[in-house]
Amino acid sequence: MQAEIIIIGDEILNGTTLDTNSQFIARALEALNIEVVRRSTVKDRKEAILQGLYEAEQRAQIIITTGGLGPTKDDITKKTIAEYLNEELVMNQDVLAHVEGFFSRRKVPILEVNRLQALVPASSEVLHNDLGTAPGTWTEKNNKVFVSMPGVPYEMRHIVEERMIPKLKERMDGHHIVHRYLHTVGVGESSLAAKIAHVEDALPDYIRLAYLPNPASVKLRLTGAGENEEELLKEVMSFEHQIKDLLGEVIFGFGEDTLSSAIGKLLLEKNASVGTAESCTSGYIGQLITQTPGSSGYYSGSVVAYSYDLKEKLLGVKHDTLTKHGAVSEETIKEMAVGGIKHLDTDYVIATSGIAGPGGGMDGKPVGTVWIAVASKDRVVAQRFQFGKDRLRNIHRSGVMGLDMLRRLILNLPIKIELKS
Amino acid sequence: MQAEIIIIGDEILNGTTLDTNSQFIARALEALNIEVVRRSTVKDRKEAILQGLYEAEQRAQIIITTGGLGPTKDDITKKTIAEYLNEELVMNQDVLAHVEGFFSRRKVPILEVNRLQALVPASSEVLHNDLGTAPGTWTEKNNKVFVSMPGVPYEMRHIVEERMIPKLKERMDGHHIVHRYLHTVGVGESSLAAKIAHVEDALPDYIRLAYLPNPASVKLRLTGAGENEEELLKEVMSFEHQIKDLLGEVIFGFGEDTLSSAIGKLLLEKNASVGTAESCTSGYIGQLITQTPGSSGYYSGSVVAYSYDLKEKLLGVKHDTLTKHGAVSEETIKEMAVGGIKHLDTDYVIATSGIAGPGGGMDGKPVGTVWIAVASKDRVVAQRFQFGKDRLRNIHRSGVMGLDMLRRLILNLPIKIELKS
Repeated sequence: MQAEIIIIGDEILNGTTLDTNSQFIARALEALNIEVVRRSTVKDRKEAILQGLYEAEQRAQIIITTGGLGPTKDDITKKTIAEYLNEELVMNQDVLAHVEGFFSRRKVPILEVNRLQALVPASSEVLHNDLGTAPGTWTEKNNKVFVSMPGVPYEMRHIVEERMIPKLKERMDGHHIVHRYLHTVGVGESSLAAKIAHVEDALPDYIRLAYLPNPASVKLRLTGAGENEEELLKEVMSFEHQIKDLLGEVIFGFGEDTLSSAIGKLLLEKNASVGTAESCTSGYIGQLITQTPGSSGYYSGSVVAYSYDLKEKLLGVKHDTLTKHGAVSEETIKEMAVGGIKHLDTDYVIATSGIAGPGGGMDGKPVGTVWIAVASKDRVVAQRFQFGKDRLRNIHRSGVMGLDMLRRLILNLPIKIELKS
Repeated sequence: MQAEIIIIGDEILNGTTLDTNSQFIARALEALNIEVVRRSTVKDRKEAILQGLYEAEQRAQIIITTGGLGPTKDDITKKTIAEYLNEELVMNQDVLAHVEGFFSRRKVPILEVNRLQALVPASSEVLHNDLGTAPGTWTEKNNKVFVSMPGVPYEMRHIVEERMIPKLKERMDGHHIVHRYLHTVGVGESSLAAKIAHVEDALPDYIRLAYLPNPASVKLRLTGAGENEEELLKEVMSFEHQIKDLLGEVIFGFGEDTLSSAIGKLLLEKNASVGTAESCTSGYIGQLITQTPGSSGYYSGSVVAYSYDLKEKLLGVKHDTLTKHGAVSEETIKEMAVGGIKHLDTDYVIATSGIAGPGGGMDGKPVGTVWIAVASKDRVVAQRFQFGKDRLRNIHRSGVMGLDMLRRLILNLPIKIELKS
């Protein structure tokens, strides 16, 4: 099955608002093995919407639109979609009751424009919107499916997950999709692909492997499609095990794991705590750690020490070390990490010092030079990285590498990581 | 003039990667008064690219594509665009020299696929890519302009800003566009609109006002279009002054200012330093401050103290205060701010403590409760905010409000900010 996504709205088209809806919908469809063949953003105008729908219908069996359904808009979208589908708009009593309840619970007087939100194309099925007043709709015409949803991201997500996906699954009845995820860090897509080439070659045509890369980490996704869910899962998992065996320690997690949550689990198992002593990443690693709910159970805190003074005062780095070797050096980073253990009173510390850019490069220490150290109460390991020129990217990669070094320290794995593309 | 943007790439289409390029390009075009009439994302396949180009040419005079130009791809995009334009691909010697230099400087052996990046359509003008090896191109056919750029965001942005915009401006010769930006914080779009309604109503049709909202801040943009640049600028600036007078202290800056850079300027003027003492924002405010190049001139560092222990040890919060009032309280936040001044040895401190969510709400302190304090050597002011349930949004809004409270403290403005939508 093939799908197209049409985002309706001038504020998306002219860049006022960043469109995240089409990515969300595309991912949801891909997980069902439905191919997205085109995504478009069109103006809030009748002609543009009609043209978008027409073009999409030439290419796809599922046409999904978001946007243009708010009460303050001129209702162009709903009327236009109904016109395209050759449908009357009729008042849906369930939706009307929901809208009226929505206002009465909030003790806000309801306006006529709000009641009109309960109008839907006559033959459409309503995709109820528990989180707002604009209903989604599902309409089948000429063996094609037209889904219309509001553009507010959290309402749209709710309708996709709770209403649209179950209906699509129903439509694919007897057809099952299973996914398995493996998360890797520190090795690029092409090196991973080389290592597991013969597994990939051995995949039957109903099991696919996708590489989903981020800076410094790559997620692998195995997707199987078939009739017998149990058999399928068994088969997909056997490939998962083969990949796991081949990639070994570069895999930090499975399923919903993130590097941050994987480290959280390790720390909770050991009943150990972590803190950070950061310079060039200015708190980013603390941010990554605290993105995992429950991180207050093992994260103590961070010191961000930009100046020599604070490196000395808050982390106990020796003045001599700083003047002799500079802030971006093996000697300083080790003292920051060891000092962090003491001053943050924690079991593990990640420390960073580098030149994130865009300025600040020096002879022998160009922009992108970053020293990272990890320490426990009895060990400290430091490593120098050479990243690129982009400040935010350098900070991000430093963060990921710092977390991976901590993972390796906790697991007693070798720590010198060679970054491979 | 009207434009269309075509993003080429399966990884965008299927949602693996979030598309931020089309927003960036749309904003750049809108700033030139060029209307974007459609944005599309198409597959990395010949037929899809040809169809996308054909459809776009029916509607627009400027057709901009990004993506599909990397050395590891099958070169489908470049060949297909050349085919569509009915052009041969020829080796451009300037680009070739640039690519070869790129590899030799990095001491990496160059491959044939890399050299092939210097192939461009025969009649195209090269839009040089200083940051990578895939050149942009500008081709004029039948009075239409076709721009092709690599999809790597920072390379694309560089080509847009340094190459494409100047050429578009040239093309619009005699026709001038002037912009003025006013940056506001703490007041929502509708309240701003109400305050300046009569200025907006008085704008002639060649001057437009746009509201560009972010969480907790709104950028106002005045755009004037006309023949006489000097007259136009004078007129736009007179409206800018009227808006400035009406909005007063909620305006923190103009032009390219950000809240972070505006505070940086104030601190540099006073030769003063700032640090942060963060709990619920876990270093985010330090991150915001250090996003301004040169921030090491006034930013000392941060303490992120999650635990009671670290709040006591690193910031000198009294144990009694924590046990009696809790971490999320006026008493604690004030001690954190004052303690930060002492322990970070800095002139100003921003402190935060709250419940960012999703969990952790308490009786009387629901998720979204955040205390923020700002302190100087002789003053401390605290304020309680009630944000929503979204963790990342709460952290962001806390950061913006913290920076604004600091701005108000430095400028001796009233600090109690009422958030208005």
